[in-house]
Amino acid sequence: MRATIMYGAGDVRVEQVPDARLIQPTDALVVVTRAAICGSDLWPYKKMPQTDGGRRMGHEFIGRVEAIGSEVSTLKVGDLVAAPFAWSDGTCIFCQQGLHTSCLHGGFWGGTELDGGQGEAVRVPQADGTLVALPVGPDHALMPSLLTLTDVMATGHHAARSAQVAKGRIAAVVGDGAVGLCGVIAAKRLGAEQIILLGRHPARIALARAFGATDIVSERGDEAIARVMALTGGLGAHSVLECVGTDQATATAISVARPGGAVGRVGVPQEALMAAALSSFMKNVTIAGGPAPARAYIEELLPDVLEGRIEPGRVFDWTGGLDQVPTGYKAMNDREAIKAMISF
Amino acid sequence: MRATIMYGAGDVRVEQVPDARLIQPTDALVVVTRAAICGSDLWPYKKMPQTDGGRRMGHEFIGRVEAIGSEVSTLKVGDLVAAPFAWSDGTCIFCQQGLHTSCLHGGFWGGTELDGGQGEAVRVPQADGTLVALPVGPDHALMPSLLTLTDVMATGHHAARSAQVAKGRIAAVVGDGAVGLCGVIAAKRLGAEQIILLGRHPARIALARAFGATDIVSERGDEAIARVMALTGGLGAHSVLECVGTDQATATAISVARPGGAVGRVGVPQEALMAAALSSFMKNVTIAGGPAPARAYIEELLPDVLEGRIEPGRVFDWTGGLDQVPTGYKAMNDREAIKAMISF
Repeated sequence: MRATIMYGAGDVRVEQVPDARLIQPTDALVVVTRAAICGSDLWPYKKMPQTDGGRRMGHEFIGRVEAIGSEVSTLKVGDLVAAPFAWSDGTCIFCQQGLHTSCLHGGFWGGTELDGGQGEAVRVPQADGTLVALPVGPDHALMPSLLTLTDVMATGHHAARSAQVAKGRIAAVVGDGAVGLCGVIAAKRLGAEQIILLGRHPARIALARAFGATDIVSERGDEAIARVMALTGGLGAHSVLECVGTDQATATAISVARPGGAVGRVGVPQEALMAAALSSFMKNVTIAGGPAPARAYIEELLPDVLEGRIEPGRVFDWTGGLDQVPTGYKAMNDREAIKAMISF
Repeated sequence: MRATIMYGAGDVRVEQVPDARLIQPTDALVVVTRAAICGSDLWPYKKMPQTDGGRRMGHEFIGRVEAIGSEVSTLKVGDLVAAPFAWSDGTCIFCQQGLHTSCLHGGFWGGTELDGGQGEAVRVPQADGTLVALPVGPDHALMPSLLTLTDVMATGHHAARSAQVAKGRIAAVVGDGAVGLCGVIAAKRLGAEQIILLGRHPARIALARAFGATDIVSERGDEAIARVMALTGGLGAHSVLECVGTDQATATAISVARPGGAVGRVGVPQEALMAAALSSFMKNVTIAGGPAPARAYIEELLPDVLEGRIEPGRVFDWTGGLDQVPTGYKAMNDREAIKAMISF
């Protein structure tokens, strides 16, 4: 079969690899019908050291169950399934409390040991715990929005939940990437009264407004902070969704949080240290978040997608086949595309 | 009157200063009957650059109302009152939600503009909002415990609340100073099932055990982390109370938190950067806390002290008069005393 392999910064190739197949009795073999390129795939695309063996890519996918192991009991061949960006057994202490990303027997897709979603098929470990069967066909019009539930919409929702967004609160969203845009959807869905997007790209701003952003702040640094403060009566936002992951974005997020507020951070930290520890401390600002337990959130968000209440699939503004994957990386890295969808 | 002035590291003097007096109509003049030296007073004691004018010290005190301004309506001359470590108007948006340390019209004691608690008298701004009248006489046996409510017990309580201590949870307390010891009291009071104290000093450990600590970890660094993991079935503590403020203590606190857990930090950050941002992120650990809204907590904790359910006053193991204040600083700095009380 063919799959996407990253060998180093800027070096993404679609190549022939061994066919995915069942190994454990708890596995399912899934033939991928839709996959995505993630903003987090751009970090290695920017700075991964060159390697000989490379690393299998892709952690957002939907596909058809082709075969199941002898211990798989909740899925059947032919099911259309969504796979969250982490696989999980669904039964451990952390899965039971909805934190599937910390599953004691789970892990993440791709790398050197496992298949990635940006390929023709995937061996899915812990299939009963990992996969969510979808009640639609593989070419349903909602496929883009359903695909976002595997990561980017779940992650925006996690930012909003971690930032304690609730009815009547003021939310600020740092970052206008796909996660930030889904964060706007999530903040509106959870009842935020005012939603301030910090971003600069016209197409993204337009989508953010369509999703419910009430104010746009396109300044940078101290000027951006001053604008958010002015928009919030000098007090700052109750809830700040940090959807970038750089030290500067984290510092901005903390700066625009009001005393007693919360920062929900879902951008994977790219620096070893987090700035502004003292300022968050003095304001009693809570810093929460981490990898979104997408497996838990899919069930929560699926009805909203199926019934058309949220349309996160609109973040996909680039679509291509498997052969176009390297071009998709480049389009996202050059910020020509918000997010790329791969159709098989 | 006489008051404590710090001129630089290690240079604390008790000197004659202008008498405290009413200035604003919202002021009260309080004659101090008990004050304390705080662990946070030791930071400038260790590293404050030498100055000519010095800085007035002390932010934990109880005293008798000697005079009130024309707009003070809830207090009368002769009342015995406790002053939390921040003064506050009691009416602003943050005071209304119990976050008095972020009062829009409040501030902190001492420095170069205001009186400090380690002196014979204090002008108390925003007296109605700041002071809590006590229903006991100035020499009541509970005075040490009542004095802790002005900071150290409120701060331990804030650590526990910020760390989401609740019935049945496992709490770890990083630091065996007075705040850490009060954190043990608070964790037990809020229902923690297992309370692990990270500390090394025999007298403090004995007091921690008396307050409810179930396990003591006296190792340092990675060994301490391994011990806490072993004591928690390999998962870590649900709630971690960070009661030191150094980068290393914060890193340890994050390391011993289980996925999905919370770190309540009340040690004033002494480094500009917070380590271990990535590890807390991957575990979805919430980092919360800051200066305790002691004004709010005094009302919550006062009945427990008055009815003998908690005895935080046991952290005072050194008592002296105003003239002995420099000796008290040295005793605390040399770790010969947990916490010093000043009797007038």
